[in-house]
Amino acid sequence: MKIILVLGAGRSAHSLIEYLLTRAEEGQWKVRVGDHSLALAREKCRDHRHAETFQFDILDETQRQQEIAGADIVISMLPARFHPLVAELCVEHGVNMVTASYVSPEMKALDREARNKGVILLNECGLDPGIDHMSAMKVIDKIRENGADLTAFETFTGGLLAPVADDNPWEYKFTWNPRNVVLAGQGIVKFIQENTYKYIPYHKLFRRTEQVYIPEYGYFEGYANRDSLKYLDVYGLRGIKTIYRGTFRRPGFCRAWDIFVQLGATDDTYEMEGVDEMTHRDFINSFLSYNPHDSVELKLAHYMGLDIEGPEMHRLRWAGIFDQTPIGLDKGTPAQVLEHILKKKWTLSEDDRDMIVMWHKFEYVENGKEREINSTLVAIGDDAVNTAMSKTVGLPVGIATRLILEGKISEKGVQIPIQKGIYDPILTELSGLGFEMMEEQRK
Amino acid sequence: MKIILVLGAGRSAHSLIEYLLTRAEEGQWKVRVGDHSLALAREKCRDHRHAETFQFDILDETQRQQEIAGADIVISMLPARFHPLVAELCVEHGVNMVTASYVSPEMKALDREARNKGVILLNECGLDPGIDHMSAMKVIDKIRENGADLTAFETFTGGLLAPVADDNPWEYKFTWNPRNVVLAGQGIVKFIQENTYKYIPYHKLFRRTEQVYIPEYGYFEGYANRDSLKYLDVYGLRGIKTIYRGTFRRPGFCRAWDIFVQLGATDDTYEMEGVDEMTHRDFINSFLSYNPHDSVELKLAHYMGLDIEGPEMHRLRWAGIFDQTPIGLDKGTPAQVLEHILKKKWTLSEDDRDMIVMWHKFEYVENGKEREINSTLVAIGDDAVNTAMSKTVGLPVGIATRLILEGKISEKGVQIPIQKGIYDPILTELSGLGFEMMEEQRK
Repeated sequence: MKIILVLGAGRSAHSLIEYLLTRAEEGQWKVRVGDHSLALAREKCRDHRHAETFQFDILDETQRQQEIAGADIVISMLPARFHPLVAELCVEHGVNMVTASYVSPEMKALDREARNKGVILLNECGLDPGIDHMSAMKVIDKIRENGADLTAFETFTGGLLAPVADDNPWEYKFTWNPRNVVLAGQGIVKFIQENTYKYIPYHKLFRRTEQVYIPEYGYFEGYANRDSLKYLDVYGLRGIKTIYRGTFRRPGFCRAWDIFVQLGATDDTYEMEGVDEMTHRDFINSFLSYNPHDSVELKLAHYMGLDIEGPEMHRLRWAGIFDQTPIGLDKGTPAQVLEHILKKKWTLSEDDRDMIVMWHKFEYVENGKEREINSTLVAIGDDAVNTAMSKTVGLPVGIATRLILEGKISEKGVQIPIQKGIYDPILTELSGLGFEMMEEQRK
Repeated sequence: MKIILVLGAGRSAHSLIEYLLTRAEEGQWKVRVGDHSLALAREKCRDHRHAETFQFDILDETQRQQEIAGADIVISMLPARFHPLVAELCVEHGVNMVTASYVSPEMKALDREARNKGVILLNECGLDPGIDHMSAMKVIDKIRENGADLTAFETFTGGLLAPVADDNPWEYKFTWNPRNVVLAGQGIVKFIQENTYKYIPYHKLFRRTEQVYIPEYGYFEGYANRDSLKYLDVYGLRGIKTIYRGTFRRPGFCRAWDIFVQLGATDDTYEMEGVDEMTHRDFINSFLSYNPHDSVELKLAHYMGLDIEGPEMHRLRWAGIFDQTPIGLDKGTPAQVLEHILKKKWTLSEDDRDMIVMWHKFEYVENGKEREINSTLVAIGDDAVNTAMSKTVGLPVGIATRLILEGKISEKGVQIPIQKGIYDPILTELSGLGFEMMEEQRK
């Protein structure tokens, strides 16, 4: 029996664990699932006969050592900062490892030693990063094989609500780590447009959106991700005229979200005073100037140049930010307070179905002619547990794990799935599971 | 002969060194001036018979040790980050020390040891911080002595151009560290208004200005300084209804400066690509979206909602930011590039005269009646070397140094000039030198 060690059994691990357990009999695997909460690990494994669960503390070095040494492969679904702790021991004990997180400098530093030990540390193998790399590289490699010249690459991914669950004016709920949603875009955004480096500061980001129409699913609004430039080297695109990575929301979301940004309500750098005694309304008022005559609504609308009955104010009212409701936190940064307030409205109900939308646009010149391919993935979740997010993050991780165990991925060292030998079998299996990028030759 | 060691002979040390040398004969002082540039130290001392100059390297521990051990008092006019290196040795060798910089945590940590050694480390003894503390505490102490209750304290300081030198649409030039001007206000602004904590994010700061009229000098525009809250404890003002510290510019400056903020042109967190090949115009264009049809001017005006012939565009054009002139730097962050471009226009000419304006407003309740005092200092420089800035920073440092040498300041440990025993004699002497806060009972 081969032992697959899964560290972390949170929301993101649901579909992954299901994938592994479904194939455990055939593969003769034992799936050991460890989480800080034993109950969570048990819930995910439901007494499956190929599963073992245990209480796991990443900071317990002895346990870490013991578990990793005894595994044939390790999947870390822990918070990304803990991956290096796992990866070091994987290298030490010659055990392969898979994550869905970005390669950190600490991870990168293990490359040489991992190669020496014949170990693969495969990262960025979820949705975004993950399926985005794989599906983009598949098209890019094909364009190159045909001797054509890629001139522009734009890509967007969004974790949204399925149309059937789309029941609020933001057309949005949290389907992933809410903290990351609140902090999204902070820092500087860099990309290349028509051979010119372009920079957007955070406070302009949600005003500089692009509209994309996807047949059958309608319009989406995209804002730019932080650093598109690093993909120049990752994808081998130096010299490309346009590169732009972004995130999808439904139209109108960004203008309303921008109000929080403009207020400073997404700031995570300082603790506010007196949060324990504040209402939602007090929270918003702390970003507005003093004026004894006007309501908070009027002050906000005036400050931001909004129509008091317009779509942004409608979204803000729906979110409950003007309510005289106690926040319910003892302390917090503005971002933490905002996250807490929004969770009251933006948490998936049991039957809510989420939706993943990924869209790439490739422009290239082939035999002197300008051509364009669009590539689209839409995935809809079953319910609040079996989300499209959980599937599209967990399944590629699970598939990669299986392929490594079966010796079908031979690369060593710190890897991300941009090589044909890795992405091809993963995409093929994903397609069989119903997750296929639809490619369309537009020009 | 007592030895006064002056470390750093930059612009800010000019009036200080002159003050010390003028009184050196009477006080029987030897003034030793060390700077990384020996030429600069010499230039400042002009062969005065009580002066000695030397090439000084703050990172040379032996030299640091030797110089400080041999001094009776040390004045550090070095960049603030070096003060702790000096202060540690001052404590070790039982030597007093004066700076014009904010107390850093490292400085603060030396308090107990300094007291044990009977040493004073007097900081924040320039203009702002410095004269602001002294002149505010003088009024606050007086209000308290009269048994009245301070309800609001607002204070602004600005380093500006004298009306006679006011020759450009910004009514501004750099009269102090340009880098600090470009980065001013970054981070979060906190203050209290009518018993409510208020927060302004950087990208709104230059839109939320206050107008202040000062008789004979006209209108000034104030934007808030970073953290007014820390003065609650420093000045003993817990429970006050309003506290607000700010910076003065001339009206219209902030709206135009805000354009740089909105563009992201004051960002100091990343290096731009291709700075060596960029013109001013390219620099601005890198923050604007791609559009092959419109000029950079039109794109900017449209993006920012500006009248193309309006006052902001007029200021921006005057600053040369649309010029096809090479920047002249090999690399840099946006803030470094912007500073470099602005220096081309905002550098004082030899005859230019600067102006310092400091203004406090105190509201208090005395015997049930609402009262108000305004306190104003205006100082005008002689030329580009003998600036009001150099005088108002250097003279309080020089005076404090003299008072300590003469045993007239008896406090020990890490101090700032908020105690009567320190501020009273300094303000008295400053007044004799022509730098007096004019107090006016407004109500």
